[in-house]
Amino acid sequence: MAKIMLTVQYDGTDHAGFQMQPNVPTVQGELHRALSTVLQEPVTVTAASRTDAGVHALGQVVTFTTEKPIPLSNIAPAVNDHLPVAVNVVSAQRVAESFHPRYDAVEKLYSYRILNRQLGSPFISRYAWHIPDDLNIEPMKAAALVFVGRYDFARFCAAGSSVQDTVREIYRFDIEGEDSAIQMYVAGDGFLYKMVRMMVGTIVQVGLGRLTVEQVEQILVGTDDTKAGPVAPGCGLCLVRIDY
Amino acid sequence: MAKIMLTVQYDGTDHAGFQMQPNVPTVQGELHRALSTVLQEPVTVTAASRTDAGVHALGQVVTFTTEKPIPLSNIAPAVNDHLPVAVNVVSAQRVAESFHPRYDAVEKLYSYRILNRQLGSPFISRYAWHIPDDLNIEPMKAAALVFVGRYDFARFCAAGSSVQDTVREIYRFDIEGEDSAIQMYVAGDGFLYKMVRMMVGTIVQVGLGRLTVEQVEQILVGTDDTKAGPVAPGCGLCLVRIDY
Repeated sequence: MAKIMLTVQYDGTDHAGFQMQPNVPTVQGELHRALSTVLQEPVTVTAASRTDAGVHALGQVVTFTTEKPIPLSNIAPAVNDHLPVAVNVVSAQRVAESFHPRYDAVEKLYSYRILNRQLGSPFISRYAWHIPDDLNIEPMKAAALVFVGRYDFARFCAAGSSVQDTVREIYRFDIEGEDSAIQMYVAGDGFLYKMVRMMVGTIVQVGLGRLTVEQVEQILVGTDDTKAGPVAPGCGLCLVRIDY
Repeated sequence: MAKIMLTVQYDGTDHAGFQMQPNVPTVQGELHRALSTVLQEPVTVTAASRTDAGVHALGQVVTFTTEKPIPLSNIAPAVNDHLPVAVNVVSAQRVAESFHPRYDAVEKLYSYRILNRQLGSPFISRYAWHIPDDLNIEPMKAAALVFVGRYDFARFCAAGSSVQDTVREIYRFDIEGEDSAIQMYVAGDGFLYKMVRMMVGTIVQVGLGRLTVEQVEQILVGTDDTKAGPVAPGCGLCLVRIDY
């Protein structure tokens, strides 16, 4: 039996998230269908990250096991033939049977894009949060740095998660702005349910002048009853890379 | 009564073309619905170009007339509030009653994008023709130049057009290649039905080594019974700009 790891890209716009659900298109559902067709046996994949509806991926990692002797280099092209344009297998490699794509991850990198101008765009708005009001980027950069370090992120975990340990470490949280495009990169050892989007939502409140950087610190450590900002829309979020 | 000209952008992927048809989403249908809602009267738009299903636009031009005294600067934001993300009004201006967006155009500029590598992309393939086989770009550039000038393009007009005069002038046809991205720009006084996509399909045959540049010349002037290349997919095509 072989355990295979796939790196997968997808445009999440027209999917109800990664995780399979009945009667709606999901990335996992597409992968199950394509892999089962190619391998002619029922295949189930386990993902590093169960991305939400609308969230994109450049480097999602999934694993599956198979008894079939398919050459590794044939897997991606064969599976891609059975996937819609919105989902694409980038590469396939053999991993140890003990490997787990979620538990063995040492760093996950997400990006978040904002389009900050009056006019939306049919092309960019699909992959960005369109915010017409002026954002002040310097305090946003300072607010992002508040999250860097090892903290209990309980205030940045949306309801609906069953996780017990809410301590996570953020390695870096960089924000770059050029004209109307604001691009964020956040890397950490793991993220709670909707944590990236709640951090982004909070940082945007700072950019709009509705929260100070000091208030963000106080929300994080629990000394301010102000709630974390709203959950930023999924369309701006992209799972860029997972390191093992 | 005022005649208003709108510049419109759209992602054509999920539309059955510009022109209104019953029971399918079209760009014209979206514009009629949004404009009629904003102006509270039935509005019909006339377009410079009836782009096909899947074709995108950065600079489509449409006109409509209205009796309602709406300030010009309010039109784009108000209409965009009623449009899906995939369609966006960039600007509105007043034009003379005699102005016609199609007949008065002096130059139309289209772009065509090709992704030339083994691996597709959920993000790029939406806006490009994915060709895994190696394309030789230098003869493609030479083939594109064959079309520059004033010719009878009857061989590059798809069935289904009722146009009588098939003479058109191409002002320029440039091809740029960088890594796996091939970008074409073609400008002319007008284009026949599917003409750009048939020219691109023919140029790609040259890039694949299946047609010579000389054969393209002979197809154009009608001395070679070889047919023009296949119609390139709509997803790679974008109506960039129309000059008046």
